[in-house]
Amino acid sequence: MHPQRWGDPARAAALPDSTRGLVELAFGLAETPAAERVAVPPSALADDLLAPLRDALGAEHVRTDDETRRLRTRGKSTPDLLKARAGDLADAPDAVVRPGSHAEVEAVLAWAVEHHVAVVPFGGGTSVTGGLSARRDGFAGLVSLDLVRMDRLVSVDHESMTAVLEPGLRGPDAEALLAAEGVLLGHYPQSFEFASIGGFAATRSSGQSSAGYGRFDALVVGLRVATPRGPVELGSAPANAAGPDLRQLFLGSEGAFGVITAVTVRVRPLPETTVYEGWHWPSFAAGADAMRALAQSGLLPTVLRLSDEAETAINLARPDSIGGESAGGCLMITGYEGTPSAVAAKRTAVTALLTGLGGTSAGPEPGEAWAHGRFEAPYLRDAMLDVGVLVETLETATFWSNRQALYDAVRTALETSLGEGTLVLCHVSHVYETGCSLYFTVAAKGDADPLAQWLAAKRAASDAIVAAGATITHHHAVGTDHKPWLTAEIGELGASVLRAVKADLDPTGVLNPGVLIP
Amino acid sequence: MHPQRWGDPARAAALPDSTRGLVELAFGLAETPAAERVAVPPSALADDLLAPLRDALGAEHVRTDDETRRLRTRGKSTPDLLKARAGDLADAPDAVVRPGSHAEVEAVLAWAVEHHVAVVPFGGGTSVTGGLSARRDGFAGLVSLDLVRMDRLVSVDHESMTAVLEPGLRGPDAEALLAAEGVLLGHYPQSFEFASIGGFAATRSSGQSSAGYGRFDALVVGLRVATPRGPVELGSAPANAAGPDLRQLFLGSEGAFGVITAVTVRVRPLPETTVYEGWHWPSFAAGADAMRALAQSGLLPTVLRLSDEAETAINLARPDSIGGESAGGCLMITGYEGTPSAVAAKRTAVTALLTGLGGTSAGPEPGEAWAHGRFEAPYLRDAMLDVGVLVETLETATFWSNRQALYDAVRTALETSLGEGTLVLCHVSHVYETGCSLYFTVAAKGDADPLAQWLAAKRAASDAIVAAGATITHHHAVGTDHKPWLTAEIGELGASVLRAVKADLDPTGVLNPGVLIP
Repeated sequence: MHPQRWGDPARAAALPDSTRGLVELAFGLAETPAAERVAVPPSALADDLLAPLRDALGAEHVRTDDETRRLRTRGKSTPDLLKARAGDLADAPDAVVRPGSHAEVEAVLAWAVEHHVAVVPFGGGTSVTGGLSARRDGFAGLVSLDLVRMDRLVSVDHESMTAVLEPGLRGPDAEALLAAEGVLLGHYPQSFEFASIGGFAATRSSGQSSAGYGRFDALVVGLRVATPRGPVELGSAPANAAGPDLRQLFLGSEGAFGVITAVTVRVRPLPETTVYEGWHWPSFAAGADAMRALAQSGLLPTVLRLSDEAETAINLARPDSIGGESAGGCLMITGYEGTPSAVAAKRTAVTALLTGLGGTSAGPEPGEAWAHGRFEAPYLRDAMLDVGVLVETLETATFWSNRQALYDAVRTALETSLGEGTLVLCHVSHVYETGCSLYFTVAAKGDADPLAQWLAAKRAASDAIVAAGATITHHHAVGTDHKPWLTAEIGELGASVLRAVKADLDPTGVLNPGVLIP
Repeated sequence: MHPQRWGDPARAAALPDSTRGLVELAFGLAETPAAERVAVPPSALADDLLAPLRDALGAEHVRTDDETRRLRTRGKSTPDLLKARAGDLADAPDAVVRPGSHAEVEAVLAWAVEHHVAVVPFGGGTSVTGGLSARRDGFAGLVSLDLVRMDRLVSVDHESMTAVLEPGLRGPDAEALLAAEGVLLGHYPQSFEFASIGGFAATRSSGQSSAGYGRFDALVVGLRVATPRGPVELGSAPANAAGPDLRQLFLGSEGAFGVITAVTVRVRPLPETTVYEGWHWPSFAAGADAMRALAQSGLLPTVLRLSDEAETAINLARPDSIGGESAGGCLMITGYEGTPSAVAAKRTAVTALLTGLGGTSAGPEPGEAWAHGRFEAPYLRDAMLDVGVLVETLETATFWSNRQALYDAVRTALETSLGEGTLVLCHVSHVYETGCSLYFTVAAKGDADPLAQWLAAKRAASDAIVAAGATITHHHAVGTDHKPWLTAEIGELGASVLRAVKADLDPTGVLNPGVLIP
């Protein structure tokens, strides 16, 4: 990736005309180029300190050159991009180390403990919550532990339908290796094209097909973790009663307890067919009630997503048509994957339920357009930042009976903080029997200090989320950005337990310091 | 319950004739009456030490009389019963205290910390793994913290389909209160009639309808826990990415981290209909493959249970006909609950799949017989112990590809330890996409020291389970009996993490000492 932008530089593009028109109308255009040739600070780690690491991993896997360090600096939140665009890469690691095995990860950790060097595990680099912005004060330096070389599909158990994956595998590579075995994982977060298996596990990621395939934490049946005190291996059975489920302690641990070096996941047969169907609803509430009815009837399609009125009006669910004509109301997208007979049976049942609740089918086109453009939004954000528009997303989840109150509270907080003319769009992208997520996209005219402008809005939204009793994050994780609100959610003793586990596994605190743990 | 027997004394019965015939043929009959009027040791807690507790809870809720203490001694494993039958109630608590609220639980814990008294949380008293047999050495005494007064349905959220239950509610009472609201939990372990909501959560219980309703840990969306350091409240959303899922640390914590004082569970609409259907399979392997196909096709009935050849032959799935005529092969029981249309649709799909795999329908009768007798087996155990037959159960789980190896290893271990003529029966009672549980029932002629005889067999079976890479317990929990094998399953660091959490929440170690934590 580019240090200041999302994704594949070859796919970066200017705003489509329809979007540019909308943006000009709403916010005006203020061409805002990013700083060029941003310098990173010199490495604080002397060559003699790195020598044992070079011996252990091979010199080519211990890098201190500026370009490598630049590309491992922070993640891809809008604040991260704004800092990088403004010429600030002060958080660059002092070195990037690339272990090729569990044993080499343990060697890096032993070295880091010995020399008191902070270690930031790095998978795809797609964190949007400051998960890569570790604290370095008090440490001799900070290394990015890049898992890129650990990219094997280790094994597939076709009878149990499980697969062992290494953490550095990016989403598409994992699916390609699994597809060659006739199976798939089915995990498609927005970051899918760049994010890694280890990152999915460490952040409790959730994908766009979570209704059908489940959250990533629900896919994991086993884990191997390297900690400063040695290895942890978990996963003796799909489920058990052998005390607390410690897998659930490492899922979501964001590199603070250890480095995940292998993940055993549940897989499914490759789907024979995929069918999309759009549905129109007169209101967000009517569509959300229909989602609830589906979830509580055990009738979930593979993909289920509902845009609110504002998001539907500007066509956010189809990035190539943003600002173009919209059908109004609220757009729901359903998608079905599986065997033709299973898809047909599920679709018949879902169609009957949705029709009965007042939904109107919009045919396959809206879903196909969404699927076609679903990984493009982050590129669009770069193009918006280029013309001085502040764009960011945030997300939460709650129980169904609190959905409307949470939605109102977050909207109000964002609109109040960012002022008149702010666009606040929302969709429900993940549903459960008992509740759902709310995913907000925000666009506002950037002011002279867009970073401070956004941080104030984010604070207001986060305060509103906590006050509403909802979660500070449904699938973006805690990182450094959400940490100030975590204690309100899990309580003083919950925070104390996290610190106790951290102190036990990482007694000198070298693992991702400042991230996650309150 | 009776201190030496299971359940409701009014339902205790002698062996049915058919069973008595089988038992006589297999093992002989050696009438073995239990000791009468077993004494409990005098209470080690002086009245002045208990005075502040009497002030806090009311004198009637702090009891030291022998009869109350006798009924709170140990659980209901065969070793527990053998000890009690032999006249050993040495583990009796020194007092039984009955807090009526979260605040009163906290008051008991504060008192226990101040006076260094061990505290054993008590729900239904149905532990079969020594979960109530806490260590008392080094403590001033030991109290049983009986949650019987905390038996309210606190609230129902019909939109989110959740309910808040207090921990002392027994299974039938919880379902009756929920039924009055039109909803159900659907959790029916063997211990259902006596076990409690708090116990289900603290032990990660799994019920006979787990295929349809899920394990108890999957039903929990929120928890309130009283610890010596204060309260913990968790459950901000159905799922989130706000760090590790700490709910999963308290589920399965067996009273060692705190006392669960409220549980928020997912509920479902009361089923309009229940239909059972039995299926015959030529072998256990063929039936298990069919179960796997159902689980991996997303076509699970509400109840799914498969007996092996031995269990089918003696009709264990129908307690009123044990030893009677059997159809041979392997009996599978399926059960469907829900609306008539949902049941019909699911049943049609399951029937097509099972028929295609070589199953033969046996109609509704076997399932109805099973459902009728499904809570009777523990009474039968008492009647077997009365005639000198050693009977116990144990269970494990593994991934599908390891099922046969695990089954063979555990059978062999039990048969080798207990000798010729031992009956080892097995069924699969819980399935997942990636694996299943194995539940063994063992009967052998009791020797002069049946307790030592069983402990040797249990050790052999547990060693075999661990050697096979399976879990030491799928749904009976760890207690004291499985603790020697827990470290092999979760590793030295997993055990270290449990100790760290325990030390953080219960610094003086008064909570269920010696239980769970290696």
